[in-house]
Amino acid sequence: MHMKTGKVILVGAGPGDPELITIKGLRAIEQADCILYDFLSPPELLKYAGKRHSEKTCEQICVGKADGLHLKNQDEINQLLLEKVKEHQIVVRLKGGDPFLFSRGIEEARFLEEHHILFEVIPGITAAFAAAETSGIPLTMKNKYSSVAVVTGRKHNPNAEIEAPDVSTIIYLMAVKNIKNVVKSLLNSGRSPDMACVFVEKVTRKDARIIYATISTVEDQVKKEKVTPPAVLIVGKVIDHELQQYKYK
Amino acid sequence: MHMKTGKVILVGAGPGDPELITIKGLRAIEQADCILYDFLSPPELLKYAGKRHSEKTCEQICVGKADGLHLKNQDEINQLLLEKVKEHQIVVRLKGGDPFLFSRGIEEARFLEEHHILFEVIPGITAAFAAAETSGIPLTMKNKYSSVAVVTGRKHNPNAEIEAPDVSTIIYLMAVKNIKNVVKSLLNSGRSPDMACVFVEKVTRKDARIIYATISTVEDQVKKEKVTPPAVLIVGKVIDHELQQYKYK
Repeated sequence: MHMKTGKVILVGAGPGDPELITIKGLRAIEQADCILYDFLSPPELLKYAGKRHSEKTCEQICVGKADGLHLKNQDEINQLLLEKVKEHQIVVRLKGGDPFLFSRGIEEARFLEEHHILFEVIPGITAAFAAAETSGIPLTMKNKYSSVAVVTGRKHNPNAEIEAPDVSTIIYLMAVKNIKNVVKSLLNSGRSPDMACVFVEKVTRKDARIIYATISTVEDQVKKEKVTPPAVLIVGKVIDHELQQYKYK
Repeated sequence: MHMKTGKVILVGAGPGDPELITIKGLRAIEQADCILYDFLSPPELLKYAGKRHSEKTCEQICVGKADGLHLKNQDEINQLLLEKVKEHQIVVRLKGGDPFLFSRGIEEARFLEEHHILFEVIPGITAAFAAAETSGIPLTMKNKYSSVAVVTGRKHNPNAEIEAPDVSTIIYLMAVKNIKNVVKSLLNSGRSPDMACVFVEKVTRKDARIIYATISTVEDQVKKEKVTPPAVLIVGKVIDHELQQYKYK
């Protein structure tokens, strides 16, 4: 007898505001028989889980994985996906941001592929870029600032150097706890201690906070303002440019 | 008598697939009395324009701005926004991708601010990152490839050097016509001619194409395969890694 398995949909939940998920992502959630979600997915999205099934409920499983807190490790999540897709037709794996950018979506996709499970990947807006709209700071500017990098502020090996590539605008994810090393790398790259930077806490959420600093003051600002993860750090000349000319509201 | 003006909403239309616009962006389109759109916005989205007005129609204006073809210049677009927001309650400015990333959304926002016009900015998924889902290539990989840059492959000054920053994965936008200079910069940065790269044409659209090459072969591939804009170029070791281990479907 052939065991009929369903399909897994890896869905990018977007940057924080539940209305910033895509139409396609929301539809997947509504069709889900089972949903595995992260701490970084907007919790409001769960109320749509399985909404298109009037006859049954959608199984909802939190798999954790916020900064420093893992309810389940990656192998356990992979195994759970495999188990659930054998029970259900549509299993949604909801991940904060985008599944293929600083997320382990590719590991889940590859695992599913190896086990001959049908899957689909739906992109989401990364908080790295949506921090621009929350803060009113564009990431590039025509003929002036024409490159932007997204870099992790946390390395597996705590002694590994943080990258500070030569681009107009750098965006660090997961930089709060490791801000000391991020600052060190920025200065080593030749950037001025006076270069502006901005922490955007809770990107696109109603309680988002924007904390202005410079490379030399940001470490103190993080402590003083008690910046907590998840927060996105934007560094670059485009910030000075904006602060002088334009105040977003 | 005080002239009552409306509000402008700058909406990121996303990477190409009309279902990859956000819930919030679609709602803005549905509420619009007037919509100014680009060639890069998915045309299917226009059918939702003003859908929430049963009594009247939504004015739809194409302002152009695809690669090399400008129906209106930026000043004309700004003036048109100002004119239309005096006639209408809700004017939507629909822009392909994200309004604050390689887009002139900030110039429009600043112009509106200067003219005391209410505005809002709704982020969208950039084709730069959604090229990952279309090609099945993740942009980063835990503990291996931990930085990604988005760079323009076209400069205002045709002699200006194209950037090739020191990151794990580089994504070029608008690189098709200037591929010769992009290749030159990549080689100058010390990257191997054998490093893999991928052009993703029509990111997230049903007729998307994925063209594999290496830095040394990509210029010929662009000609041979007749790659046309808009297309996104991904360059980096993560591609080799993926090609060896995993084939996306």
